[in-house]
Amino acid sequence: MGEPRWLGEREAAVWQAYLAVQRELHSALERQLVRDSGLSNADYSLLVPLSEAADGVVRSRELGVLVGWERSRLSHQIGRMEKRGLVVREECAEDARGSMVRLTPAGRAAIEAAAPGHVEAVRRYVFDGLSAEEVDVLDRVFHRVLGRIADDA
Amino acid sequence: MGEPRWLGEREAAVWQAYLAVQRELHSALERQLVRDSGLSNADYSLLVPLSEAADGVVRSRELGVLVGWERSRLSHQIGRMEKRGLVVREECAEDARGSMVRLTPAGRAAIEAAAPGHVEAVRRYVFDGLSAEEVDVLDRVFHRVLGRIADDA
Repeated sequence: MGEPRWLGEREAAVWQAYLAVQRELHSALERQLVRDSGLSNADYSLLVPLSEAADGVVRSRELGVLVGWERSRLSHQIGRMEKRGLVVREECAEDARGSMVRLTPAGRAAIEAAAPGHVEAVRRYVFDGLSAEEVDVLDRVFHRVLGRIADDA
Repeated sequence: MGEPRWLGEREAAVWQAYLAVQRELHSALERQLVRDSGLSNADYSLLVPLSEAADGVVRSRELGVLVGWERSRLSHQIGRMEKRGLVVREECAEDARGSMVRLTPAGRAAIEAAAPGHVEAVRRYVFDGLSAEEVDVLDRVFHRVLGRIADDA
């Protein structure tokens, strides 16, 4: 690899700011969710794809891909949500190894009650502070980063 | 609160792209770290502030604030790193309730060996693809979001 190419001072500062945004935004959104609806970010992340799926059912492996979690983390989280009545686990008819996760009526009611406050918090912390041009730059940059990661895989 | 203000189509797409970047960048950087140095992102996040601290010692509570983790997650992670000889826990002389975390020579060697490859991956996935103007916009936007979160707390 030759000499390591360190980040310049400006790039290092922007990288630290990105890491801080990731950490602080995650915490702030979770505080709002817990306070106003008793859900965690992890609950919310799983309830969204379930509420958007046909019949509220998603294969557990697919849920893991959607949220980017390892199997053990996903399984613990689903277990906690099952105890609270938000989801149930079911066997998969076509594939004996694959289990399915189904949103319960209580889970659907929870995500529907939580969504407006969560969206309002995303607007307040992020989008209400951005110009249309800044949103365009973010869109371009985010997709470019995703493309570079995909090219490298 | 009145009617919920939903995100516009464009804002919703940019928000999804942000969540995808967060997830994919985290995974890609962790794959590189694990493959090239046997460290996880969690290991790396704790080793950085320890390696920058005077004498390589940081109060455990302060480490938790720096990485934004709850106490139980921090304590499990430090336990795993202690078993691998990367850090040791010590009692705090001034405060009986506070424990300190100390970087071992093996921990210092691990972070020094891992850093160049990690930085190279951050450049490759992110900064090599950005213009100076885009870096400026990101810097401005990230600090604005951090300010809005701080004002709201």
